[in-house]
Amino acid sequence: MARLFLTPSRIVSGQGALDDSLDILRGLGTKAFVVTDPMMVKLGNCKTVTDALERAGLGFEVFDQITGEPSDIMIEAGIAAFKASGCDMYVGLGGGSPIDAMKAIAMMTACDGDIDEQMGVALDFDRPPLVAIPTTAGTGSEATQFTIINNTRQGIKMLLAGAKVLPDVAIVDPQFTCTAPASVTANTGVDALCHALESATSKKMQPMSYTFSISAIKRILAHLYTCYTEPENVEARTQMAIAATEAGVAFNNASVTIIHGMSRPIGALFHVPHGLSNAMIMLECLRYVVDGAYPQFAAVAREVGASVATDDETAANELLDVIAELLRKLNIPTLASYGIDVDEFRAQIPKMAKDAIDSGSPANTIKPLTAADLETIYERLISA
Amino acid sequence: MARLFLTPSRIVSGQGALDDSLDILRGLGTKAFVVTDPMMVKLGNCKTVTDALERAGLGFEVFDQITGEPSDIMIEAGIAAFKASGCDMYVGLGGGSPIDAMKAIAMMTACDGDIDEQMGVALDFDRPPLVAIPTTAGTGSEATQFTIINNTRQGIKMLLAGAKVLPDVAIVDPQFTCTAPASVTANTGVDALCHALESATSKKMQPMSYTFSISAIKRILAHLYTCYTEPENVEARTQMAIAATEAGVAFNNASVTIIHGMSRPIGALFHVPHGLSNAMIMLECLRYVVDGAYPQFAAVAREVGASVATDDETAANELLDVIAELLRKLNIPTLASYGIDVDEFRAQIPKMAKDAIDSGSPANTIKPLTAADLETIYERLISA
Ligand SMILES: [Fe+2]
Ligand SMILES: [Fe+2]
Repeated sequence: MARLFLTPSRIVSGQGALDDSLDILRGLGTKAFVVTDPMMVKLGNCKTVTDALERAGLGFEVFDQITGEPSDIMIEAGIAAFKASGCDMYVGLGGGSPIDAMKAIAMMTACDGDIDEQMGVALDFDRPPLVAIPTTAGTGSEATQFTIINNTRQGIKMLLAGAKVLPDVAIVDPQFTCTAPASVTANTGVDALCHALESATSKKMQPMSYTFSISAIKRILAHLYTCYTEPENVEARTQMAIAATEAGVAFNNASVTIIHGMSRPIGALFHVPHGLSNAMIMLECLRYVVDGAYPQFAAVAREVGASVATDDETAANELLDVIAELLRKLNIPTLASYGIDVDEFRAQIPKMAKDAIDSGSPANTIKPLTAADLETIYERLISA
Repeated sequence: MARLFLTPSRIVSGQGALDDSLDILRGLGTKAFVVTDPMMVKLGNCKTVTDALERAGLGFEVFDQITGEPSDIMIEAGIAAFKASGCDMYVGLGGGSPIDAMKAIAMMTACDGDIDEQMGVALDFDRPPLVAIPTTAGTGSEATQFTIINNTRQGIKMLLAGAKVLPDVAIVDPQFTCTAPASVTANTGVDALCHALESATSKKMQPMSYTFSISAIKRILAHLYTCYTEPENVEARTQMAIAATEAGVAFNNASVTIIHGMSRPIGALFHVPHGLSNAMIMLECLRYVVDGAYPQFAAVAREVGASVATDDETAANELLDVIAELLRKLNIPTLASYGIDVDEFRAQIPKMAKDAIDSGSPANTIKPLTAADLETIYERLISA
């Protein structure tokens, strides 16, 4: 079976990426609708971007109402603001949420329909150019064709997807990630590691996604801890920023598996940030599924230099050891040390296992998994 | 310095890629202008494509006048045919030449100017969607923003370049490469190896281009010889087709160096096919420049599994040994065994060295190179 490999057509990366993108920005339109969050305004990152837009000769309007995971209410406010703005291009600046929100605002403005009706159909509306400027090295949203919107009327999370949801230009500038607190660096970096490793060992893996998965894992193993301990190390930040985008490209084209599948329900019910909930469960998930895919994990282990063992089981386990050591050094908390109430968590296990299975992601894992398997893993996390 | 990384937004690869692209094709327009060569018509590859277009509900018009490297005369005929056709999208089918021709026809139709005036400026004209369907695993033209046109009026080769020259969709279907004769498989495959290795060791290398370079080299070392000896091995053909596209992405974003720089003058003066002239000179070029970049060649050697030596000089030379062995097994001829007259060749050495330097490519090599260096290498090729 042939496979589609979808990437932003233009990725500008490295130190000075924003300043070096003025010609590209100038070619996209005349006035940019900047979707961001209040923290980006406060930190000055938004002004850095609007100053660059001005130097490019572009007008702009800032919409900074993305105060958390994007909701239908935020999106509708964004649509109204865009329509009133006279803008002809979008810039999404922030972690995953503002970029996800930009995608949704652009697609919903283009289709001019009801957001509730767009779930589960491939969105294919012409819309103005989308530029994504990530400020964490993690979500990879700049390279994905997905956006998740919290539908407050129906009480569900809506996945909007389609090739046109993918940004046209990604500006991957390490200057924006240097201000992230150490814990955010760690959590978002592990999120990227999950994207890379899950996509590398997904049933939906394809050759070109694997290229990106392996490259991202190597960069993350080599540079994430340095970013954590030396936040101003621009070379390490550059490598992690590129790794996060590569991992985004990888999972955009090969999907995620068990970790993301099991992480999302924890995030939803216990309000744990996305990267952190992945990081807390990553190792337990891998330990459970590794025996179903020793050859695949062993291949990754050898490709990234985590093992030279010729025996697949040994090589696969050595990869998990390397990851365990990285997580330990990054001080990733356990559920308990993070403060999640054990009894509340245990009570939610059946629902979380069901929601995880329903998301479809665990089914991409090579080892066959049932809801009972996931319940076992959730249970193990309590005593971890 | 930040770097732009430019790729076709959509790459469909693997067995059945054409058949699995009907939805994408349908979304691009209503009538396709198919640029190809008479051999593709004769082999039935053109009909395979137009049948697919019909199944996608699209009209088409075939322009099969690309009888060699594209010239201004072919391009002008193509522009006239396109304008009369009522087409609103392009499909380029073939080796490098028809895809290069498609790019030039589309850009020149869009700018509606004189082809002579477009050299050396970044072409940025809106044009209909471009689909590239390569039939050799080699040139990587489906992934590059360049096209070279033979300007017969001025007697020069014109390089047209720009982000809009890059195809929007690449359909990388191994079915089209399975019919290539063994020597074409070898030559075009080595061309791809040159793209990958030159871009990996180019001064213009960037992190994401390196990711693609390494992946392509690994696939080529693992699968090119199999394609040569087992032309119908679809898995090997698939891997080589993907490798050629990856290598195209790599050199599109990191440039080529000495081999392509020195190969082009041989091709122009002695009418040697592009891949073959690269293949004939590859090893001599590498042997000359490796001592200027032992760490870089050694890094490649270790990444692709060609060496485990810790000493850079040893590792770099082991990579060259692996390449030498591959070239030997592919029966790449020497200049003499190919039938080039030694005296004629020697007489052209000063001109070839100058033209190579003027092309700019040798300057991307890490080892500093003068025209005298290139003359030495050309001289060595005579006695090789
Ligand atoms: Fe994630
Ligand atoms: Fe080439």
